[in-house]
Amino acid sequence: MKKEIEKKIKNIKILVLDVDGILTNGKININHQGHEFKVFDVKDGYSIVLFHKAGFKTAIISARSAPAVVARANDLGIKKIYQDASPKTRAYTQLLKQMKVKDTEVCFMGDDLPDVCVLKKVGLAITVPSAPIEVKRNADYITKKHGGDGAVREVVEMILKGQRKWNSLLRDMDI
Amino acid sequence: MKKEIEKKIKNIKILVLDVDGILTNGKININHQGHEFKVFDVKDGYSIVLFHKAGFKTAIISARSAPAVVARANDLGIKKIYQDASPKTRAYTQLLKQMKVKDTEVCFMGDDLPDVCVLKKVGLAITVPSAPIEVKRNADYITKKHGGDGAVREVVEMILKGQRKWNSLLRDMDI
Amino acid sequence: MKKEIEKKIKNIKILVLDVDGILTNGKININHQGHEFKVFDVKDGYSIVLFHKAGFKTAIISARSAPAVVARANDLGIKKIYQDASPKTRAYTQLLKQMKVKDTEVCFMGDDLPDVCVLKKVGLAITVPSAPIEVKRNADYITKKHGGDGAVREVVEMILKGQRKWNSLLRDMDI
Amino acid sequence: MKKEIEKKIKNIKILVLDVDGILTNGKININHQGHEFKVFDVKDGYSIVLFHKAGFKTAIISARSAPAVVARANDLGIKKIYQDASPKTRAYTQLLKQMKVKDTEVCFMGDDLPDVCVLKKVGLAITVPSAPIEVKRNADYITKKHGGDGAVREVVEMILKGQRKWNSLLRDMDI
Repeated sequence: MKKEIEKKIKNIKILVLDVDGILTNGKININHQGHEFKVFDVKDGYSIVLFHKAGFKTAIISARSAPAVVARANDLGIKKIYQDASPKTRAYTQLLKQMKVKDTEVCFMGDDLPDVCVLKKVGLAITVPSAPIEVKRNADYITKKHGGDGAVREVVEMILKGQRKWNSLLRDMDI
Repeated sequence: MKKEIEKKIKNIKILVLDVDGILTNGKININHQGHEFKVFDVKDGYSIVLFHKAGFKTAIISARSAPAVVARANDLGIKKIYQDASPKTRAYTQLLKQMKVKDTEVCFMGDDLPDVCVLKKVGLAITVPSAPIEVKRNADYITKKHGGDGAVREVVEMILKGQRKWNSLLRDMDI
Repeated sequence: MKKEIEKKIKNIKILVLDVDGILTNGKININHQGHEFKVFDVKDGYSIVLFHKAGFKTAIISARSAPAVVARANDLGIKKIYQDASPKTRAYTQLLKQMKVKDTEVCFMGDDLPDVCVLKKVGLAITVPSAPIEVKRNADYITKKHGGDGAVREVVEMILKGQRKWNSLLRDMDI
Repeated sequence: MKKEIEKKIKNIKILVLDVDGILTNGKININHQGHEFKVFDVKDGYSIVLFHKAGFKTAIISARSAPAVVARANDLGIKKIYQDASPKTRAYTQLLKQMKVKDTEVCFMGDDLPDVCVLKKVGLAITVPSAPIEVKRNADYITKKHGGDGAVREVVEMILKGQRKWNSLLRDMDI
């Protein structure tokens, strides 16, 4: 981990997540009625629960829209959800105001071209291995894990450890 | 990229796609009522949206039929859909007429034996790594990415870059 | 390909398939109502259609039961389906009688312990890479491709080529 | 296999399983109505059936809850199911009492932090390759196979073989 990123991590108060490709592996599953199901990761989800327990906040900004996202967000305690967000900067600006945070306090994870506008603004810009080069160029960090398969967990642990909150969470669980 | 392909790319006006194995990974998901769901890729889809924005057209020719294809096509703005197309040349000939394009202006992506008849006709014939040898032999280019996992995106970017339209799309997004 | 297997292939008239792990990758997908969906492979399916066109027959023997199997079988023209077959030899014996074939004329593909009793009887016994050692020991051939991902196609092409029927099928398609 | 584990295996009477990440690959599949489907493995399932046949018992302890788990458990003959178990030690203690077994007679498989409290208590503590380091540190054995893809089968066979019951099961099937 580079020094510069360690410093950026210290400021983070909120984790903002793209859905397709970040909370999922980017597959769009459509049934015969045109309805969509989404595939999330249980260990990603559990890390979000721990993140909230440690006092952090989370939000979702997606360019698409699906009821499954709301169901999963409710399950995990993610309160702010912006769907059909295009361009994403509009939702992002609104979010800053509503949650009373500054750019430097936000970590955003996105994996495709429409995420670049937000990645350019936030304190800690993160993408995943499958992102195109134009996105990677605008990220502070590229996760080792893939979207929908541990990328979110990796970032949550990175922030919790970087702010020295991981160990006390483990202690609370007698680990 | 070979010179010959670069030249072929210059002529392309329309991208015609097989569904199973190209827009999906070729899995046929059947529920207890016999209904089928399909698994598409979000980054493939986004590239099709950009492709349309750049003035290109797209179409689907599938030997099978599923309502999920129509739902996804509508979502992405793909206007021409030929399902239950057998042999595929019939739908292809109709498409040429309706869309007023010539063989040399068409890029077709297909991954199995029933696609060969169309691959032989089009200006730019493309298949995927999992295609059988008989299909590969009839293709100008084999994508690096797999069907349902970036193959379509790879081809869309190849055409947009080959026709010098990629950078202006990025500029429109401040990337 | 060993000489011995080439000889066995010459006698085959019917291909009998296990479902889970052979026509699928062995995943059991259960929804909130307890209903199951199955994931088949489009290129496996297309090879079965070609196999029928070449005059061969197919059947399914599964120890489990799911309506999705019937839907897929109907789609592909597989006429004989034995579900809830336990032990599988009972269904197998019935099948021999009804289809008027002998052991040596049957190729069976199975991937787990309940398939061994049938693998031991048939002329051509085939399993997949993920099968346990006890199954592999009773197989004439282990496919290179995995169940639900080309294993059936590999065997169908092996039989069609071994009986010199593949090329005429291709010629019919102008390939 | 280390001597120490061989000795622990001898005492096992019951196999207790976490669901997400153990009986599945940890993916949470949510449809447009918020309902969840689960993806199990057919060979894992068959090993559980054999395990019961050999006189062993099984149970499920999950921190989450889904009807699909009950459907699959019924299919496999798993009688005890504790869902929404948090902390898992509460369900575990209840299970010991109800099934009249001691810690040393229990093998537990879990893959994330909430499983550690139970892993610390049982006679044989097992996790999977994708588990975080904090879980692995508390396991007697890490399976070679992944959750939802043979990990349970691997453990069932390990116990059956360690207690010299595997071969007689095979003999009953004429293998």
